[in-house]
Amino acid sequence: MVKERNLKIVVAYQGTAYHGFQWQENALSVQQVLEDRLMPLFGHPIKIAGSGRTDTGVHAYGQAISLRTTGTIPAERIPLASRGHLPNDISIVSAEEVADDFHARHSATSKVYEYRLYHGKQPDPFRRDLTWHYSRKLDFAAMQEALRYVEGTHDFTAFQGAGGHQINTVKTIYEASLQAVGDEYLFRFWGNGFLYHMVRCLVGTVVAIGIGRKKAADMPLILESRNRKMAGMTAPAQGLYLKEVFYT
Amino acid sequence: MVKERNLKIVVAYQGTAYHGFQWQENALSVQQVLEDRLMPLFGHPIKIAGSGRTDTGVHAYGQAISLRTTGTIPAERIPLASRGHLPNDISIVSAEEVADDFHARHSATSKVYEYRLYHGKQPDPFRRDLTWHYSRKLDFAAMQEALRYVEGTHDFTAFQGAGGHQINTVKTIYEASLQAVGDEYLFRFWGNGFLYHMVRCLVGTVVAIGIGRKKAADMPLILESRNRKMAGMTAPAQGLYLKEVFYT
Repeated sequence: MVKERNLKIVVAYQGTAYHGFQWQENALSVQQVLEDRLMPLFGHPIKIAGSGRTDTGVHAYGQAISLRTTGTIPAERIPLASRGHLPNDISIVSAEEVADDFHARHSATSKVYEYRLYHGKQPDPFRRDLTWHYSRKLDFAAMQEALRYVEGTHDFTAFQGAGGHQINTVKTIYEASLQAVGDEYLFRFWGNGFLYHMVRCLVGTVVAIGIGRKKAADMPLILESRNRKMAGMTAPAQGLYLKEVFYT
Repeated sequence: MVKERNLKIVVAYQGTAYHGFQWQENALSVQQVLEDRLMPLFGHPIKIAGSGRTDTGVHAYGQAISLRTTGTIPAERIPLASRGHLPNDISIVSAEEVADDFHARHSATSKVYEYRLYHGKQPDPFRRDLTWHYSRKLDFAAMQEALRYVEGTHDFTAFQGAGGHQINTVKTIYEASLQAVGDEYLFRFWGNGFLYHMVRCLVGTVVAIGIGRKKAADMPLILESRNRKMAGMTAPAQGLYLKEVFYT
């Protein structure tokens, strides 16, 4: 009998050219490229499970996927072996054999997202697909204050984009922070789960606070309202990165 | 009589989508985009002069151009006014009125080029068009030593690519240095002039020294040979950046 192994593979991609991570009928997804292009490494068609979706234009440094294979390639050889098969906007970071019951989505315990906002005056040609360019003056302290209200366990319905259908809208955010890095603001969100568009809604709302359209002290009220209309705009996709998925 | 002004404009661009800076018959150049798209700012057709060419795929943080205009837009308003007109891989950094005899190419006294080599094991989706990915182990000290021989006044014919036609092949390099920045090596060349493909030939040769195919001490012999075949390969275009053009 051929032994079937379960693999966990970490993937990085620039999302610009893809209609998100997840397989779609009429548009090119990262998942489809991975399933099509990695097949020769395993010697049979593969079906991958991702830790979750990412939207069109959203990037990943550490998307995790799992797949089952009867192929014999040692896990540690997969990153190098994949180089000739994948397009240059998708790259395998690491691969390892995992327990039989591991599943990239069901086993995930928390995730880290980052969001890059570039606040220089002029557009930067090198970061056009990698950051949100927003050149209005932002109140850094007010934005940091707003993010402190995000940490903890809350019902995040007010920050769920239209089209989100999660039954459990209560999530715990362990970290919601903001760092100034050169001419960018780097948002970081670490939580046990995220609703549809939640990070982008949070960033849009914090930016509305940064320009004075809302107040940092409004954050608890927005959360309590459970009303998407109380929050701010959805920040654009190209600033968002799935940074890491944790399993313990 | 309408006053004609002479303007110096500094431009940044990601070169990936363009067939170089300079106007070409059948291919899209950065110059063509600038001439076509900036016309509305001045109210008449414009003809720009660049500080020099950049090849297909080569980038610029500080390409300098000059142009003459009878338009009345204040120079300092040009960067902001250009935002709606230019594609997002080209951006105007600054603009100023200059003396009547200023010319972006003829008045240039020196230039700085940088070259980014990414040496991580796996391809980085976010830097595929912005760096040369070269994952073989490189001897940093040997490369630094090789670059010391590049500084000074030399005949650089051995580092001139085929198709270069400069009459004066003697150039002075004020700085040829190498820095380790994270998982990249950053080459920096500051000189009073550069031959066709010269920076890319220098980088390719220094990398040949880094992997031990040549020795650092060979550099003076390669220079003296004036023979392109003695030098190493031409490093790929996408790692190269025109960083700054000096005029004093």
